[in-house]
Amino acid sequence: MSILEVKSKSGSYRVVAEGNVLATLGEQLQRLHISERTNVTVITDDTVGALPFAKDALRSLAATGYRHQVLEVPAGDHSKSLATASTLYPKLLSFGMRRSDLIVALGGGVIGDLAGFVAATYLRGISFVQAPTTLLAHDSSIGGKVGVNLPEGKNLVGAFYPPRAVLYDLSALATLPARQWTNGMAEVIKHGIIGDARLFEGLEERPLVACPDADVLEPILTAAMKVKIDVVESDEKEANRRQVLNVGHTLGHAIEQRSHYGLGHGEAISIGLVLEAKLAVARGLLDEATATRIERVLAGHGLPTKTPRDDWDEVAAFIDVDKKHGRALWTFALPTAIGDVVIVDDVSPDEVKAVYDRSLEEA
Amino acid sequence: MSILEVKSKSGSYRVVAEGNVLATLGEQLQRLHISERTNVTVITDDTVGALPFAKDALRSLAATGYRHQVLEVPAGDHSKSLATASTLYPKLLSFGMRRSDLIVALGGGVIGDLAGFVAATYLRGISFVQAPTTLLAHDSSIGGKVGVNLPEGKNLVGAFYPPRAVLYDLSALATLPARQWTNGMAEVIKHGIIGDARLFEGLEERPLVACPDADVLEPILTAAMKVKIDVVESDEKEANRRQVLNVGHTLGHAIEQRSHYGLGHGEAISIGLVLEAKLAVARGLLDEATATRIERVLAGHGLPTKTPRDDWDEVAAFIDVDKKHGRALWTFALPTAIGDVVIVDDVSPDEVKAVYDRSLEEA
Ligand SMILES: NC(=O)c1ccc[n+]([C@@H]2O[C@H](COP(=O)([O-])OP(=O)(O)OC[C@H]3O[C@@H](n4cnc5c(N)ncnc54)[C@H](O)[C@@H]3O)[C@@H](O)[C@H]2O)c1
Ligand SMILES: NC(=O)c1ccc[n+]([C@@H]2O[C@H](COP(=O)([O-])OP(=O)(O)OC[C@H]3O[C@@H](n4cnc5c(N)ncnc54)[C@H](O)[C@@H]3O)[C@@H](O)[C@H]2O)c1
Ligand SMILES: [Zn+2]
Ligand SMILES: [Zn+2]
Repeated sequence: MSILEVKSKSGSYRVVAEGNVLATLGEQLQRLHISERTNVTVITDDTVGALPFAKDALRSLAATGYRHQVLEVPAGDHSKSLATASTLYPKLLSFGMRRSDLIVALGGGVIGDLAGFVAATYLRGISFVQAPTTLLAHDSSIGGKVGVNLPEGKNLVGAFYPPRAVLYDLSALATLPARQWTNGMAEVIKHGIIGDARLFEGLEERPLVACPDADVLEPILTAAMKVKIDVVESDEKEANRRQVLNVGHTLGHAIEQRSHYGLGHGEAISIGLVLEAKLAVARGLLDEATATRIERVLAGHGLPTKTPRDDWDEVAAFIDVDKKHGRALWTFALPTAIGDVVIVDDVSPDEVKAVYDRSLEEA
Repeated sequence: MSILEVKSKSGSYRVVAEGNVLATLGEQLQRLHISERTNVTVITDDTVGALPFAKDALRSLAATGYRHQVLEVPAGDHSKSLATASTLYPKLLSFGMRRSDLIVALGGGVIGDLAGFVAATYLRGISFVQAPTTLLAHDSSIGGKVGVNLPEGKNLVGAFYPPRAVLYDLSALATLPARQWTNGMAEVIKHGIIGDARLFEGLEERPLVACPDADVLEPILTAAMKVKIDVVESDEKEANRRQVLNVGHTLGHAIEQRSHYGLGHGEAISIGLVLEAKLAVARGLLDEATATRIERVLAGHGLPTKTPRDDWDEVAAFIDVDKKHGRALWTFALPTAIGDVVIVDDVSPDEVKAVYDRSLEEA
């Protein structure tokens, strides 16, 4: 079992990472001093809700005597919407949820973001516990960002609203589909690049191509979470330093959109990490050998690393949308070594195009 | 001109109360160090948007060079909804509103609550300035409560999100319809009862039955706002002390709902204040003479003071909905003197019924 502490201006919280922690969900709430008279609403999706660990979690709530209900939304990113939130509020009301009651977000990043947003806004904010069940959720459940998408774009409506605690059941990851696993590993590798050379080296030596036992996974995810915690503690509201978390994402997110989400998020980020490492090399910020290591570790996890198509103009248009109202130059988070990333705000589109096109020729 | 300061954990803000302050809106923003490159979206309603002071405000924004747009929603409480918020977000996006940009809420409590909620959630929160234009807004623009209604009830979704500043144009109140004015005065009187005997005495001696000149109004509204500021500073997130603001509202709000909103909010609160003062007398908390003074000052402002109908069971049902999941006893904020209110949490419905029925007989 690992216990990490996340300091936040609006209340610190702990992250408990452990195998089978959901089977003792009720006891975990007791340990958080959540009174037995608290009403608990578990928000999950219809895939997760059907899995054995979810049933165990509910059994534990029942055994410890918490009055509770489960609300299931359809699995998938389209549930992360104001429309879905609007269907949840009345169900909280009719169950009698008060200011002092608790929401448990049981699922992946979609559920964490949606249920967290509902918790942040219902009755002007009630407590919630993150119970993440995907590999990506090592990332999304830490840092207090919650929110929903608009038809116009992702994560456009939301809040900074830290959870009361994060209960990360490492055994729950065993049921993840292979592609989900691989996609999630891109973000674990990213955290190594941002702030933990040892984590990165471990993944070079022994790629995690499938979900291992909880005790093997625990030190790896703990290390990745520590990097994220370190960054968000230093910049809770994303004023500045938090931008380093964006490494791989400026290009990656544009490539993801350009693929019309045919590429998974982690797959697109993998390509973005490789390209942005090359951009860092082109700018003299990173040595070539390190860029090659980044490419190899991603490939070693079954992630794509090559520019998929000769379509720079379309990709650039997506970056431009992101940066629409900035200047003509782009901002990137670029690696300077394994374990270090800097922000540069004077990247010209032509520099990026050169890297993009070269990666294509090599493909 | 009065300048008050409101301390808040997530950033303090000042309240500028002055005649014609909106005619210098642009300069006011400059004084708040809002950069000239800030995009400004003014959210208002279609009644307010058509009034001369609103035009002046926009002229001032134009003259000071702020890039700006105006978004108008239909006047009325039904605009305070997630549906209306959903129509505003895309318009913020298409105007290019970034994290560093600004919303100005120009209007009454409905606009303050709605635009404040949109500001709190758009891109996880951007700055907003409250520019209140109703008498009630002396209350609603202070304290950081923002939010929208659900079909199931009022103010059920929202946040605690303090504004960057409150710019209260006292001349704007001149165009308020008479009934709006009278309703707003109920809350001014309430603030006297909660914490300022002098304010109350002033209104006893010279009732404000219509909107006076800005310089007459300024000390009165400043005193009322100081009471509110004092309470919210001591309990920003409504844990406890903030409940004193509820005086007159437990019964008043139930009577308002029971009237199917035929009574204005202030009218219902006026009846609530009278009944709750009588309840305080029945409990030995308040002397009869003071309860009579409360009744007289409200009547002197043209506000109703008598129980409108013999319908205790229906009114009690509305209180029960509010308190549904509490115990069988009710919580009230009750006056003990002019300028002092206490919280009592052991009021039996029968006690309240006795007061309610007696007020009816006298009517
Ligand atoms: N808040 C943040 O800081 C942050 C950071 C990164 C990503 N995100 C958000 O997270 C979301 C993506 O997260 P995600 O990949 O976890 O998506 P997700 O929640 O949609 O989960 C992916 C799929 O896996 C299923 N699933 C979840 N747990 C499972 C398990 N244990 N076994 C089998 N199937 C399981 C889900 O039902 C879903 O179909 C995006 O919306 C993204 O914007 C948020
Ligand atoms: N956030 C809080 O702490 C808080 C506190 C009290 C009330 N409120 C909310 O405030 C709302 C009621 O506020 P309100 O009474 O200001 O309602 P409102 O905003 O609907 O204004 C009332 C009417 O007056 C019009 N109007 C506004 N300014 C005018 C002016 N200067 N001249 C002429 N007409 C004008 C409006 O167009 C509207 O039709 C409710 O939704 C209530 O829940 C919030
Ligand atoms: Zn990502
Ligand atoms: Zn009121």
